Amino acid sequence: MSISELVDETIAAIGPLDQAAVSAAEARQGVLTKPPGSLGRLESLSIQLAGIFGQAIPAITGKAVIVAAGDHGVAAEGVSAYPAEVTPQMVFNFLAGGAAINVLARQAGADIVVIDAGVAVDLDPHPGLTIAKVGYGAGNIARGPAMTREDAIQCLEVGIAAAIERADAGANVIAGGDMGIGNTTPSAAITAAITGADVANVTGRGTGVDDAGLAAKIDTIRRVLETNQPDANDGLDVLCKVGGYEIGVLAGVMLGAASRNCAVVVDGFISGAAALIAWRLCPVAAERFIGGHRSVEPGHNVALDAMGLTPLLDMNMRLGEGTGAALAMHIIEAAARCLAEMATFAEAGVSDRDDG
Amino acid sequence: MSISELVDETIAAIGPLDQAAVSAAEARQGVLTKPPGSLGRLESLSIQLAGIFGQAIPAITGKAVIVAAGDHGVAAEGVSAYPAEVTPQMVFNFLAGGAAINVLARQAGADIVVIDAGVAVDLDPHPGLTIAKVGYGAGNIARGPAMTREDAIQCLEVGIAAAIERADAGANVIAGGDMGIGNTTPSAAITAAITGADVANVTGRGTGVDDAGLAAKIDTIRRVLETNQPDANDGLDVLCKVGGYEIGVLAGVMLGAASRNCAVVVDGFISGAAALIAWRLCPVAAERFIGGHRSVEPGHNVALDAMGLTPLLDMNMRLGEGTGAALAMHIIEAAARCLAEMATFAEAGVSDRDDG
Repeated sequence: MSISELVDETIAAIGPLDQAAVSAAEARQGVLTKPPGSLGRLESLSIQLAGIFGQAIPAITGKAVIVAAGDHGVAAEGVSAYPAEVTPQMVFNFLAGGAAINVLARQAGADIVVIDAGVAVDLDPHPGLTIAKVGYGAGNIARGPAMTREDAIQCLEVGIAAAIERADAGANVIAGGDMGIGNTTPSAAITAAITGADVANVTGRGTGVDDAGLAAKIDTIRRVLETNQPDANDGLDVLCKVGGYEIGVLAGVMLGAASRNCAVVVDGFISGAAALIAWRLCPVAAERFIGGHRSVEPGHNVALDAMGLTPLLDMNMRLGEGTGAALAMHIIEAAARCLAEMATFAEAGVSDRDDG
Repeated sequence: MSISELVDETIAAIGPLDQAAVSAAEARQGVLTKPPGSLGRLESLSIQLAGIFGQAIPAITGKAVIVAAGDHGVAAEGVSAYPAEVTPQMVFNFLAGGAAINVLARQAGADIVVIDAGVAVDLDPHPGLTIAKVGYGAGNIARGPAMTREDAIQCLEVGIAAAIERADAGANVIAGGDMGIGNTTPSAAITAAITGADVANVTGRGTGVDDAGLAAKIDTIRRVLETNQPDANDGLDVLCKVGGYEIGVLAGVMLGAASRNCAVVVDGFISGAAALIAWRLCPVAAERFIGGHRSVEPGHNVALDAMGLTPLLDMNMRLGEGTGAALAMHIIEAAARCLAEMATFAEAGVSDRDDG
């Protein structure tokens, strides 16, 4: 299926992991000064990084979190505990450095890029803000589509361009992050549509709706799917019918990063929904995905399971913004460093088990 | 029960968490720019740190990993996949910077202290090595006690002194790490003795024994407990009868660190056994413990559960050395930084849910 020149080229550039690098990393893990397998997921992660980067000893050269913001007409249905004005307010908080993602990205040594993908109001220019507004808030998906197919393609292209820009600047570990009041609702709709899971199993409390709010949210999401009838086999159809601008940009970020042999760190529920769209458009891209953390949102697990991802962290987090992914970057770096910096049995003069 | 002047003073200095600091940190978490609770364990961890440090906004001033090494006469029973010569070889690997704990402590910004607590051979002096040998390998606990009661007290004192030295140098997040071929056997015996769990439920494969080896190991540990009859209510009796030199030093490290209002990061199975001894000697100390990770060793979970600790990470690791604790230090730092550095709703001009 042809989407656009940039999207087609990007998808075509994504291949499977480099098996020679995978084999070399596996062999090196076997001779480092530790019992084989004793570093657990740090070992398997280092081997995945080798395959992603195409390097026997993978070196992290830079990290980035690309945060996309957008509003959602469906917020008018009362699906969120917060008013929509919080979306632009939080964008300014990102630009001022006061949000959780700022703190966690600083600690992880990751650059932050903030993209206005579709906030409902015009935002003042700021050196840290990429204004790439595809629309002024996605349509109310309880009553019709989120956006046109053309707009969905534009979202992907914005995300691809942002990821490629970061990769060109030296990043090879890239995460997406989201901000958008109401965006757990399209994420639940996307997750149900693509995985086939029941709406009740993928709908959570988001920023904190109560029991009655949760029941109403489930009803709303069922209505979203009935109204729009997204085609589960067509990621672009799912995105334009029940998605959102920032979700489309994040899907593009993941494809763009994968096309440049970057590791893609998947954050929480909204990023998981974006990853499902990227995966549906390009299944092999998921070989470059790393589950950053397991969100409290029940639909996140469903999305991760569908893509075969086991998250690195399980911290009862549900904030989005890329926070869980930024936190996971320390683990990813640890995996790469252990493979690169540990001594081998021969180098250290340590007896291996076969000597005993 | 009086143990020695230093141990008694240390235990007497350990009190409950500072409740004023706990309350202040809880209140601040409620006004930071995020839905309440959305940072999950990062929030509860920041509140625990506030109580440990006695600071409304806890600041990490330094980190240290104190690695204690010792040998075990019980290795002669064939309980390990590696020969005992690996203990001193790995000590030299620590001093040369080539072990996993070196890599992970470097990444976490933690200093490493290596203590010869009871390696079976004399080690050459090295600037990075504290030679505090309490004995030349613990006794074979399948046939008699690990050490005398006096030696066990000396182990605690060595650990207390090492932790206080690090605290005086500025560290307020301190982990213990272990090296000792055969030391999952005394750790399983300690865990069974103190928690009352069945030996089969606390015995794992250590560095990698096979099925027959595992069955023999379980038999050996049952014999250890029958032979020594440790008093479950007396941490010192458990240590001297079925423990080991490095385990005693690690228990001392935990008491010493807690006495100086440091956060104690508990590593894997051996550190968990040391923590059980410290907890039995001073139950309130556990309020200052943070479970770093969940080891593959089944007994680790039993130990953590007994102390009410939920580990931060679950990475299928089983290496020891302090590796899981060092990895968890990034998470601990993230918790402190989010509490300290995030903007409040009022500071950022973001609408709280009550405004909506």
